[in-house]
Amino acid sequence: MSMSRQEIQDLCVKSLEEKMVGTEAKNVDNGNGFYQYFFTNFPDLRVYFKGAEKYTAEDVKKSERFDKQGQRILLACHLIANVYTNEEVFKAYVRETVNRHRIYKMDPALWMAFFTVFTGYLGSTGSLTDQQKAAWMALGKEFNAECQEHLKNSNLPYVH
Amino acid sequence: MSMSRQEIQDLCVKSLEEKMVGTEAKNVDNGNGFYQYFFTNFPDLRVYFKGAEKYTAEDVKKSERFDKQGQRILLACHLIANVYTNEEVFKAYVRETVNRHRIYKMDPALWMAFFTVFTGYLGSTGSLTDQQKAAWMALGKEFNAECQEHLKNSNLPYVH
Repeated sequence: MSMSRQEIQDLCVKSLEEKMVGTEAKNVDNGNGFYQYFFTNFPDLRVYFKGAEKYTAEDVKKSERFDKQGQRILLACHLIANVYTNEEVFKAYVRETVNRHRIYKMDPALWMAFFTVFTGYLGSTGSLTDQQKAAWMALGKEFNAECQEHLKNSNLPYVH
Repeated sequence: MSMSRQEIQDLCVKSLEEKMVGTEAKNVDNGNGFYQYFFTNFPDLRVYFKGAEKYTAEDVKKSERFDKQGQRILLACHLIANVYTNEEVFKAYVRETVNRHRIYKMDPALWMAFFTVFTGYLGSTGSLTDQQKAAWMALGKEFNAECQEHLKNSNLPYVH
């Protein structure tokens, strides 16, 4: 089953309707909740969060830092979903995101892995249809391709 | 004449078609060109660009810093245009943009003024219809409203 860019965008945007960004407590929780899921299910990756390497989901839940970080990452996911059909804008946003993460010296394989984590989160706390998941993985594949291309062009470690 | 959110979005996105982001020289120039226009027509605002307070348009044109900065600001304009109909995502992106500018201690009046500068740039180097300009100013008005609300909520100087 092949999906058009527009179908992928519509499915991803739709999957985020229950995970809206915003300033209300519910919206803040939507972002913080991602990190609760992340830290519970992928504890080895906590190493990238200086000072929070041993945080439990309960620690994350109480953390203002992860309230803010949660909004930021959730917003990024909304942005990539909403601009996906504007391919050059999508790719420019990917490059900008990679540039901002340069200081963290991430394993380049994590750019693709993120979409497994993020769809895992969406599925864990709401409804994520198989089709929506497939749409996110298709978007993620293209996101990752531009990440690796940009890392290569920036003379940084990348996945071949 | 009143425009719907969708009309505003479509007009703004359309106006950026000739100012696409990207890695080709033409795309890099689209961003750098904004700062050439900005520094030429609003020289008093160069004070916010440390080390470039006396740059001429020619200096900007040769500057890698403004190639990068130009892409970033042009991308931001593409993003706000493309997500405008998704109101909560638009507003979240506005807040994130304000947060990132906190360190520059900007005059809060500049958030609205930006749209005069940006539409000036679009008009100076390509075709910007009166309707497209009106759409950008309508978008800008809403952008600015969320900026001032967020500045206020963050206990920072804001425009009443």
